Amino acid sequence: MIKVGIIGGTGYTGAELLRLLAFHDCAEVVAVTSRAEVGVRVDQLYPNLRGICDLVFSDPEQASLDNCDVVFYATPHGVAMHTVSELLEKGGKVIDLSGDFRLTDVSVWEHWYGQKHVQPDLISEAVYGLPELNRHRIKDARLVACPGCYPTAVQLAFLPLLEAGLIDTDRLIANAASGVSGAGRQAKLDNLYTEVSDSFKAYGVSGHRHLPEIEQGLSQISGGDVKLTFVPHLLPTVRGILTTAYAELSVEQQSLEQLQSIFERRYANEPFVDILPAGSSPQTRSCRASNICQIAVNKPQDRETIVVLSAIDNLVKGASGQAIQNMNIMFGFDEAESLRLPAALP
Amino acid sequence: MIKVGIIGGTGYTGAELLRLLAFHDCAEVVAVTSRAEVGVRVDQLYPNLRGICDLVFSDPEQASLDNCDVVFYATPHGVAMHTVSELLEKGGKVIDLSGDFRLTDVSVWEHWYGQKHVQPDLISEAVYGLPELNRHRIKDARLVACPGCYPTAVQLAFLPLLEAGLIDTDRLIANAASGVSGAGRQAKLDNLYTEVSDSFKAYGVSGHRHLPEIEQGLSQISGGDVKLTFVPHLLPTVRGILTTAYAELSVEQQSLEQLQSIFERRYANEPFVDILPAGSSPQTRSCRASNICQIAVNKPQDRETIVVLSAIDNLVKGASGQAIQNMNIMFGFDEAESLRLPAALP
Amino acid sequence: MIKVGIIGGTGYTGAELLRLLAFHDCAEVVAVTSRAEVGVRVDQLYPNLRGICDLVFSDPEQASLDNCDVVFYATPHGVAMHTVSELLEKGGKVIDLSGDFRLTDVSVWEHWYGQKHVQPDLISEAVYGLPELNRHRIKDARLVACPGCYPTAVQLAFLPLLEAGLIDTDRLIANAASGVSGAGRQAKLDNLYTEVSDSFKAYGVSGHRHLPEIEQGLSQISGGDVKLTFVPHLLPTVRGILTTAYAELSVEQQSLEQLQSIFERRYANEPFVDILPAGSSPQTRSCRASNICQIAVNKPQDRETIVVLSAIDNLVKGASGQAIQNMNIMFGFDEAESLRLPAALP
Amino acid sequence: MIKVGIIGGTGYTGAELLRLLAFHDCAEVVAVTSRAEVGVRVDQLYPNLRGICDLVFSDPEQASLDNCDVVFYATPHGVAMHTVSELLEKGGKVIDLSGDFRLTDVSVWEHWYGQKHVQPDLISEAVYGLPELNRHRIKDARLVACPGCYPTAVQLAFLPLLEAGLIDTDRLIANAASGVSGAGRQAKLDNLYTEVSDSFKAYGVSGHRHLPEIEQGLSQISGGDVKLTFVPHLLPTVRGILTTAYAELSVEQQSLEQLQSIFERRYANEPFVDILPAGSSPQTRSCRASNICQIAVNKPQDRETIVVLSAIDNLVKGASGQAIQNMNIMFGFDEAESLRLPAALP
Repeated sequence: MIKVGIIGGTGYTGAELLRLLAFHDCAEVVAVTSRAEVGVRVDQLYPNLRGICDLVFSDPEQASLDNCDVVFYATPHGVAMHTVSELLEKGGKVIDLSGDFRLTDVSVWEHWYGQKHVQPDLISEAVYGLPELNRHRIKDARLVACPGCYPTAVQLAFLPLLEAGLIDTDRLIANAASGVSGAGRQAKLDNLYTEVSDSFKAYGVSGHRHLPEIEQGLSQISGGDVKLTFVPHLLPTVRGILTTAYAELSVEQQSLEQLQSIFERRYANEPFVDILPAGSSPQTRSCRASNICQIAVNKPQDRETIVVLSAIDNLVKGASGQAIQNMNIMFGFDEAESLRLPAALP
Repeated sequence: MIKVGIIGGTGYTGAELLRLLAFHDCAEVVAVTSRAEVGVRVDQLYPNLRGICDLVFSDPEQASLDNCDVVFYATPHGVAMHTVSELLEKGGKVIDLSGDFRLTDVSVWEHWYGQKHVQPDLISEAVYGLPELNRHRIKDARLVACPGCYPTAVQLAFLPLLEAGLIDTDRLIANAASGVSGAGRQAKLDNLYTEVSDSFKAYGVSGHRHLPEIEQGLSQISGGDVKLTFVPHLLPTVRGILTTAYAELSVEQQSLEQLQSIFERRYANEPFVDILPAGSSPQTRSCRASNICQIAVNKPQDRETIVVLSAIDNLVKGASGQAIQNMNIMFGFDEAESLRLPAALP
Repeated sequence: MIKVGIIGGTGYTGAELLRLLAFHDCAEVVAVTSRAEVGVRVDQLYPNLRGICDLVFSDPEQASLDNCDVVFYATPHGVAMHTVSELLEKGGKVIDLSGDFRLTDVSVWEHWYGQKHVQPDLISEAVYGLPELNRHRIKDARLVACPGCYPTAVQLAFLPLLEAGLIDTDRLIANAASGVSGAGRQAKLDNLYTEVSDSFKAYGVSGHRHLPEIEQGLSQISGGDVKLTFVPHLLPTVRGILTTAYAELSVEQQSLEQLQSIFERRYANEPFVDILPAGSSPQTRSCRASNICQIAVNKPQDRETIVVLSAIDNLVKGASGQAIQNMNIMFGFDEAESLRLPAALP
Repeated sequence: MIKVGIIGGTGYTGAELLRLLAFHDCAEVVAVTSRAEVGVRVDQLYPNLRGICDLVFSDPEQASLDNCDVVFYATPHGVAMHTVSELLEKGGKVIDLSGDFRLTDVSVWEHWYGQKHVQPDLISEAVYGLPELNRHRIKDARLVACPGCYPTAVQLAFLPLLEAGLIDTDRLIANAASGVSGAGRQAKLDNLYTEVSDSFKAYGVSGHRHLPEIEQGLSQISGGDVKLTFVPHLLPTVRGILTTAYAELSVEQQSLEQLQSIFERRYANEPFVDILPAGSSPQTRSCRASNICQIAVNKPQDRETIVVLSAIDNLVKGASGQAIQNMNIMFGFDEAESLRLPAALP
């Protein structure tokens, strides 16, 4: 049993870590911190965890995180970079769910996150925690930067096409839509039930922090510069991201069957990427509360524009589930441990 | 490993049995039937079960249900009574999720269900599968009639008060509200998204099939005639039942603390009844996809009207989860096996 | 054309006043105030009003409210009482949508609202703006206190039964459920989409500010003390209140037909109360964005418990629509002016 | 007052015609037909219309449609083409909300609709009822084919760019999402609340009937062949379509300001197209139950891909509202008569 700490446990990704780790065979959460809720039982905020989790929120300064084998940061960006190095020095491993160590170029990070990065040295050490791309590096990492939710869904959609060199990398389009939990547990007018329900809109069209992260990832996969138009939308759902990814074939005569086969082969051994039959339409609810990413390849009218659909749960494969998947890899556990549960339909 | 059969597997309770049994340590589903979908893979209808369930729907006439140690009927009412006796004769046990064997008085059944009962002899043998009330009889039963969803939530709310003889049994009120999945997976205009969403209404006010079932149960608990006004409502949610139960104190000077203590003691050893602190408000989402029933006692303005709130997931504690709980009891398994998972919040 | 001012125009009731008054034949909104949004166009916050409303939010201190024939307070409680007298002195009329002048007993008000009332003298002058009860007094009022949303729905449900003296006034029950807009446009965690969606719960069971208001109203109607158990619930809908009202017959042999006839006669001339056929179930969406209150009488199992269902839109008949109805009465306009539009289904 | 008939009044577009025409100054609905509901009052199916509409559904064969000045077909495709010619011969005008006369090429129609067209002669006479494109031809038309819901939203998004010749017509992309009411009032499993709620998916990716209609329209606007990738999605909302339209600039140096100005000029005199400030994000709820189309132009990262967002209510501007707009044009009424009402927010 390894000892696990969670920093920032009151948010949705923190709660999701607690839910998913509750039945982990080899890991036990021993500390969960929150500045605002010190002394409050976790199950008072999350009554679904009554009888499952006996923990009490503790002060991050006083929590015995030093004893932890691994610490998850389930905090907003700009928090982890201040204290990660201490934990690493004491021999712990760190999995950061925030954006602090995702971008390899400090100046790009500072531009998009609007602040100075206080720990630029660690950026190069941090491993980008997309197991389907970086499993071997994750295995030996001390510090893993978990991908954002959109970046997970978008990169998994384009990855096989880019690796195979089949598409025009100059004008990729990712039309993505996310449930409201992507905005976190913060009291904002824009995320009130009355503002979001029974409606749909795009947001961040002129620029979203996940854009540079996705372009960095796609460029790395492609081995060259990739340009993406990324338009996120806000769904009236709690969870779920659906990416509708558009790419132009740059080579001739790729049938839908050939494309399907490329996807199936690429992800054949991936425990959490499920390629649906060609022409399918994954739905976000099939992945709800589960770590699965369902993907389907389409080639409408048999023209040159490929449409790849990918669905995930933003809080699981897009955050806490993927973080645990990374932990399992880092500690040599079964990669799927505590992550096998399917969505409940309906 | 016992062998399990499911009759009527395309509906929501059938799918929920499959989801919950997928990781059961001592039971394995070997057959799932559906007249309409013979030969179709289960995971084609329920893509959340891809990689979890390899079964194919089979014809109920040809399925090898005889080999099963237990068979669940996840069918509409009026189906189970035609074939249950055959299965019992061959030595299997039967857990019926439908209404066929819930009412002990045949004429009452025939009145409310509008048809002749073809197997009245089995009615007296059938054990009403509310573990909190009948655990010892369930243990030895061949045929268990699982309670309806509303009856589960309503009976658990009133039970401690009735057993303690504290309330006026002449005028109980159960104001209950259910998510749309309670109506099953049937193509009905009334249950379209466009008809249900963003709205709320009562239905079946003049009479609902669950009324005689609840009154029968409450009368048995009380040891005398109980009269209930039962008003079900339709919630714009997928799952969940909340019962707001009203009762008049028939004895003097019962404080909220005393009432709370009565509830806590009565359910102290129940694995799936969770008494919240006095004055709380359970919410349906805290029980979603879980077998828990959360209950809270209230005594507004310290007057004589007690308000008990009980929340369940209608498809789990109100149907498939409770059915599995019954199976666990019947076969001597850990009662909570495969039923420990909490709801995912949010 | 009378001149209308609105104080507190950024909230949902303010926006609803603007929408409903946009096409009023005899009234024109000339000022709408908001401390937080001074100088901002109304249609920037409410893009549905683009092309309909050219107003800009102004500072309440500088707005020319003195010139207004009538001023609506669409503010939280505790605001109107500070400035109403000034407006009245200058000859304007005031319609207060908040709770400041609804309770006739100052000490009760101060208990439930947790503050000192600064204008107790005006309480006795204020007319409680439920047209179905007080039309004649509203006609001549300078200051109208609009009923709360729940109180509107609950009082209209019980009113005919109380006036006819048919029910036991000792133990009325109002089980009510409201959409989230009832909580106003405030950034609160509890009202996030992620906290409310796909769930249902009671709240304020131990005590809600609308309880004393309803009991005061029912007692006035009844001519004696009325005791009510009032349990509000939070619906995952934007708008709508459904009240399920329970009362015990105190006289013998009242058939459903007789009860139906009592309701029909009582409301025969009411433009905004619509009695559905006996045994019906009104749904909140049929009243959405409309000023109608739909009511249906039920007598389950022909027993002694009467169930009255009443549905309104909390923002319209429960707030802004009723406020305009009051204005129409006060100024001698057609009572239904600008309030005739039906809900859009689905 | 002209006399109006509606064929197929039980569906959502039929009900919407009745709601919108209820207060029309120059038109009166005198007959509404439905084979299934002959003799039933309209307000029994649509209780929102109680007090607004006294009509009873009549048999289409016996309804006195001959006396009508105009008849709306609110029927599924394949119905109108059988009887339109009779009505035209008797001197009435016809507005068809179905797909029967939208495609100018009979063979394309027969391919996509899977049946023989029985009235091909009328196809060339029918005027495509998109007022922003065809107002002058609509004015004199006997038979107007109302555009589909998606085609309305998509064409209005691309129209100014195509007319100005600014974009590559070879690879347009329309990522569109619609509320469930677009599927009509039919009892289908796929549209149950339990199947749609809290989820999101694409559908019809390999081919949707609106694709040839949109390509025909865009090609006509462009004056040359246009190729579109069209991916519709199903939203968990009742109403609303949002199109996220992607186009590549084919000319250099068009700033966002220039593009914005092109849109504003093109739609300057359109009563129902509202161009939001550059960089905005229209939301579907701002157009709900209203005839407005809100459009916003974006140019992410100032690159070459333009993103145009357009929002409509699929049942109003995408169906019944646009049909009435066409009627107003055909009869010389104020084009906005009975169509001025804004959405209600929230």
